[in-house]
Amino acid sequence: MLTAWAVADVGQEEDFEAAKEKALKVGATKVIIQDLRKEFVEEFCFPAIQCNAIYENVYLLGTSLARPVIARAQIAVALQEGCFAVSHGCTGKGNDQVRFELAFYALKPDIKVIAPWRLPVFYERFAGRNDLLEYATKCGIPVSQTKAKPWSMDENLAHCSYEAGILEDPDMTPLRDMWKLTVDPEDAPNKPEDFTVHFEKGLPVKLVVGDKTITDPLELFLAANTIARNHGVGRIDIVENRFIGLKSRGCYETPGLTILRSAHIDLEGLVLDREVRALRDQFVTYNYSKLLYNGLYFSPEREFLEGAILASQTTVNGTVRCRAYKGSLQILGRSSETEKLYDMTESSMDEIGDFAPSDSTGFIAVQAIRLKKYGKKKLEAGEKL
Amino acid sequence: MLTAWAVADVGQEEDFEAAKEKALKVGATKVIIQDLRKEFVEEFCFPAIQCNAIYENVYLLGTSLARPVIARAQIAVALQEGCFAVSHGCTGKGNDQVRFELAFYALKPDIKVIAPWRLPVFYERFAGRNDLLEYATKCGIPVSQTKAKPWSMDENLAHCSYEAGILEDPDMTPLRDMWKLTVDPEDAPNKPEDFTVHFEKGLPVKLVVGDKTITDPLELFLAANTIARNHGVGRIDIVENRFIGLKSRGCYETPGLTILRSAHIDLEGLVLDREVRALRDQFVTYNYSKLLYNGLYFSPEREFLEGAILASQTTVNGTVRCRAYKGSLQILGRSSETEKLYDMTESSMDEIGDFAPSDSTGFIAVQAIRLKKYGKKKLEAGEKL
Amino acid sequence: MLTAWAVADVGQEEDFEAAKEKALKVGATKVIIQDLRKEFVEEFCFPAIQCNAIYENVYLLGTSLARPVIARAQIAVALQEGCFAVSHGCTGKGNDQVRFELAFYALKPDIKVIAPWRLPVFYERFAGRNDLLEYATKCGIPVSQTKAKPWSMDENLAHCSYEAGILEDPDMTPLRDMWKLTVDPEDAPNKPEDFTVHFEKGLPVKLVVGDKTITDPLELFLAANTIARNHGVGRIDIVENRFIGLKSRGCYETPGLTILRSAHIDLEGLVLDREVRALRDQFVTYNYSKLLYNGLYFSPEREFLEGAILASQTTVNGTVRCRAYKGSLQILGRSSETEKLYDMTESSMDEIGDFAPSDSTGFIAVQAIRLKKYGKKKLEAGEKL
Amino acid sequence: MLTAWAVADVGQEEDFEAAKEKALKVGATKVIIQDLRKEFVEEFCFPAIQCNAIYENVYLLGTSLARPVIARAQIAVALQEGCFAVSHGCTGKGNDQVRFELAFYALKPDIKVIAPWRLPVFYERFAGRNDLLEYATKCGIPVSQTKAKPWSMDENLAHCSYEAGILEDPDMTPLRDMWKLTVDPEDAPNKPEDFTVHFEKGLPVKLVVGDKTITDPLELFLAANTIARNHGVGRIDIVENRFIGLKSRGCYETPGLTILRSAHIDLEGLVLDREVRALRDQFVTYNYSKLLYNGLYFSPEREFLEGAILASQTTVNGTVRCRAYKGSLQILGRSSETEKLYDMTESSMDEIGDFAPSDSTGFIAVQAIRLKKYGKKKLEAGEKL
Repeated sequence: MLTAWAVADVGQEEDFEAAKEKALKVGATKVIIQDLRKEFVEEFCFPAIQCNAIYENVYLLGTSLARPVIARAQIAVALQEGCFAVSHGCTGKGNDQVRFELAFYALKPDIKVIAPWRLPVFYERFAGRNDLLEYATKCGIPVSQTKAKPWSMDENLAHCSYEAGILEDPDMTPLRDMWKLTVDPEDAPNKPEDFTVHFEKGLPVKLVVGDKTITDPLELFLAANTIARNHGVGRIDIVENRFIGLKSRGCYETPGLTILRSAHIDLEGLVLDREVRALRDQFVTYNYSKLLYNGLYFSPEREFLEGAILASQTTVNGTVRCRAYKGSLQILGRSSETEKLYDMTESSMDEIGDFAPSDSTGFIAVQAIRLKKYGKKKLEAGEKL
Repeated sequence: MLTAWAVADVGQEEDFEAAKEKALKVGATKVIIQDLRKEFVEEFCFPAIQCNAIYENVYLLGTSLARPVIARAQIAVALQEGCFAVSHGCTGKGNDQVRFELAFYALKPDIKVIAPWRLPVFYERFAGRNDLLEYATKCGIPVSQTKAKPWSMDENLAHCSYEAGILEDPDMTPLRDMWKLTVDPEDAPNKPEDFTVHFEKGLPVKLVVGDKTITDPLELFLAANTIARNHGVGRIDIVENRFIGLKSRGCYETPGLTILRSAHIDLEGLVLDREVRALRDQFVTYNYSKLLYNGLYFSPEREFLEGAILASQTTVNGTVRCRAYKGSLQILGRSSETEKLYDMTESSMDEIGDFAPSDSTGFIAVQAIRLKKYGKKKLEAGEKL
Repeated sequence: MLTAWAVADVGQEEDFEAAKEKALKVGATKVIIQDLRKEFVEEFCFPAIQCNAIYENVYLLGTSLARPVIARAQIAVALQEGCFAVSHGCTGKGNDQVRFELAFYALKPDIKVIAPWRLPVFYERFAGRNDLLEYATKCGIPVSQTKAKPWSMDENLAHCSYEAGILEDPDMTPLRDMWKLTVDPEDAPNKPEDFTVHFEKGLPVKLVVGDKTITDPLELFLAANTIARNHGVGRIDIVENRFIGLKSRGCYETPGLTILRSAHIDLEGLVLDREVRALRDQFVTYNYSKLLYNGLYFSPEREFLEGAILASQTTVNGTVRCRAYKGSLQILGRSSETEKLYDMTESSMDEIGDFAPSDSTGFIAVQAIRLKKYGKKKLEAGEKL
Repeated sequence: MLTAWAVADVGQEEDFEAAKEKALKVGATKVIIQDLRKEFVEEFCFPAIQCNAIYENVYLLGTSLARPVIARAQIAVALQEGCFAVSHGCTGKGNDQVRFELAFYALKPDIKVIAPWRLPVFYERFAGRNDLLEYATKCGIPVSQTKAKPWSMDENLAHCSYEAGILEDPDMTPLRDMWKLTVDPEDAPNKPEDFTVHFEKGLPVKLVVGDKTITDPLELFLAANTIARNHGVGRIDIVENRFIGLKSRGCYETPGLTILRSAHIDLEGLVLDREVRALRDQFVTYNYSKLLYNGLYFSPEREFLEGAILASQTTVNGTVRCRAYKGSLQILGRSSETEKLYDMTESSMDEIGDFAPSDSTGFIAVQAIRLKKYGKKKLEAGEKL
């Protein structure tokens, strides 16, 4: 049987030559390495920034974002090579199996998926990663998870994740040398680094740091990564709820995305209408994040929500000045040449402007109608407020 | 006319004796100083922690939380002293006038409110804070906003806010010496500080730092403040949307609340059911925060939502280990003796447990039904996914 | 002073000549009558059908829909005639003043609005409608609200509303002869009437009834009206919550809109993806309806939501067969030639199709993971489920 | 092997003696018939009324409501009889398998479930209902679905459902004699029937019709059924989205529940605060309905949401007068002796009351701030509104 081995370059710092050799060694008849970094940034990371995507308040979805772009490339290879099936190496308890397979099925509804970790012939022989590590050692297959690094990693240009192994104890603090992308905040430079991000329609279009100005999306994203990595920005450690219904502990570093998302949120304060922002937060951000996490990228609801993202971002144009320092990001200021929702004179407490203070009296009086009734009833009932 | 001057001690670092003197000097016939710190922490700050309250993704509502407790005490004083009206010093463009007055009206529906900044006799004479500062200087009335500190502040034990004056330019970075509560992260100790927060039903019940163990709510909150202030944790700088429809720039430091809220969110990852968390996030957190911001604390909807908060927190019991360092907070680990939603064995990638990997196949197959149809239609229509 | 009197024809059954005469008689220097029916149906009623707009579960927003189209025409007349101000006759306690004025201000931010009912010179002289009726009688100004019809009406081609007067007692059943548009269900024909509505992208594009086929939007809407009016379909009687914070009792008849909206909802069952529908229901329908009711049609959020409506309706193509009879509407069947989400074979309980029943076992097992934990905890705690 | 056969009486009009005989005939060693009607009404139907439960705008969840009460009784029997497993007869494509099994697993996490329709030994032999009908005929097992009634039914005291068979064509109008519970509206009496429903805390506590007054919950529910059945109220015919991801056509008659839910919604207009109602609608009603439909009754989220339902209903006290006629329900009026949110004088257009019309001016002016900015930008951009 011919086996095409597709390796997606989504920005992980990997030795692709070694990967190729390993693939050929374990039986691949053909190895195809594709650079997906540009489409990964432009089609997946940037919309996530546009809608401030976040799962369960903290997780920036670094792995979730990469799965659909990988799956799409894998199906393209499968079509090109005439494969009768595609495969993946995800376990049967995690989110990634769902993300890969739902993408496969949406992209090619008649595809056959082989998931070895869910085949009794495999899982009855290998009870877990340890058994597999032993088997790999025995057979001379090189693997990155080792006894010295007793956890599992997933890396791409947006993030690196760490889970399983010793991390399964949620009270076990990650070892200092586990983190791969970012320096430990304690080891970060004592001098802060300032930079500026420019947005158009909610998309980062220019990053200025020192004497460098970057506009290419991929380069811009990588430059944001460099800043954040140098200053230890973007680490989190959480227990999250998998789609599959289990809780799971994960450590993530998401350097550049953390910076760009925070800058975007800040700019929206200046230029986005209050009600549009509120609807977008409650409806688009929440649900877009959830569908990414659950592997429903190629779905009618993603198409629907992306229409809403676009509709929300027409005014998100402007510039945010930021500072990275010892693990944290600080906003220094923001401005927009085109948007005028914020009006210094009008907001000013020092000027009356064309706003009649007495209007507020009426505004409050009307808001109070309902509350006076409520208060009256409480008083009559002798209930304390 | 007799004028009772009520001063609420909500933890601001103020010279209450001086305040009393000032009040008597400007015409008060009686000055009543009340320590509201305990009820402020227990009735207002703690529920905010329980539901992770946050406005527009970033603002922790430090001012909003204090207004209702002050208003309630003010109405109590008004009743006790037989006042025919209450007054406040808020401008006619801000949120605080709304927050105070809606609380007044709910607590005593027939109260008369005097809002000098909205009376033509005043606002036609004094166009803004600058005119008032001059007038105060002329009359020898001491005020904290000065030419040297050209901004307005509001402080309580949960936070200190800075707005107006030179901050009205949203691109003006706050001066280093503006911040009052927290040290500049760059000046914070080079050594991190670790501590542990214990929660019961979502409320912080014990804080352990060094060899100290604090359980009294007020003391606990103040201890969290001390840690965060020493390490520069809890500063933000935003442009927000006022209830009144204007955008406004505010800088806030919210030291202890930032820490306790983050620890609470982390613990929920371990002990709160996924669906309860999701519903709480999307509806309770969002709406409770919004009503706090808009001054609707004494309202039917707050009573309704507080019922929902309580219903959501029965399982939020456990301990979170944290680290403060140079402006950021890091979670080191978490555990719970009573809650068992997280199960290391079960989540483990290294063991099969009583979970059949093949179940995931069925789960994915069913989830895919809808997506296969979607993909098929796209293929037929020749649309790219 | 020259006073242009603009009369909007939004389909109300009014004697426009008489209106003109009355206007000239009471002082108008120019009377402009505009037929807005086409734009009212196409730009306002149809999007409402597309998103199933409804306020507080029951009210189909007949008045709310007409206000923005009237306000837009009025501003256009004001511009054309060089008016320094516009006016309206709404009371100071209702929704319509808000709807008209917010539209005026959005369309022409510097417009001056004269609202006589809120001017002390008027409201101190006339305490309510009764005083005005008397004054009108005295001055010979003809008005439609009379002693014989002691309520207030608002009519357009989408609906007729009845409120105030004797209807202010919420327990007072409307008089049989109050209803203007629809026949009393008890007087409706004993024979049902069947008809078919065709939709494209969520818009009604063809109505077939008897041997008539109507495709023009305005004609189609009027034909739907005719059917519903003849059979007494579309009456409601509610107590609703005004934007202004008061509760209010209203009786509404909304004949054609009731029919077209119901048919649209039914078709969505057949052709709209489950998740798109759920998101649309919870966010778009709810918020679009609320903003219509509150008079925020010309707003950033409406523009945002209309983007979302369009994104949701691409698949809403098909035909619904309906029956009107004695006050109720019944769906007889539905079909679509283009959409294939519903698949008889696949849904059939009588065939296995390419669906493996065992997949459901896995689906259920995975869904049960979380619930088993919940059940186990309840059992351990001795709590009954 | 001993086989206990449990028959739940949830109000279906069934010959329980015949059911018993049939069970014994096909191999049951013991038949246990339990009357669950009271707990079905009180614990399941009434909370559904309290929160106006509805799925996808139209379906009142009659089947979904009965599954958990049946499952709970079945598990109780299983425990009492020492069963090692429970079973059900649901197909592998529907919702009911999910509803039963998720309930079983929550109630007794270690239970074994036997689902014959998902066992290859069965589904490979019997491809669908037709094969089973033939087999039943051959073996002399009496079944209610016959060649003459080519559809499947599920009945309980809240509703009767019809699906599958000839109904699988969504454009096939149900036969006139299919409907079992309600008379055809065309055959309903020519005289309307009036009645009154009284609610306390959102629960129906008294129904008065003619000279009868009913207060017992079960009797009250049955009386509502009688009225609605006689007048053909409560039929619907829809295409819905199953949890399993398939679309499905169902016809339902839900007589009494339709009436009681409509009366409840009407009363809420009079007595429920606007904001509580809005939050409840968007959050509790939507999600409670969805979890019922998806079989997640015994879940943390249901417990959470039921807390919220209770918190929302404290003021829902009052009386609604209704009329049933020829398939439709009409509200004649409503009143409350205890709740005072609605105030005739205050809402009246005919009196000023203690409300200053000029307050509305301020209210509108403040609401307009944001919209004027929006309008100004549109004008500057030359975009039409």
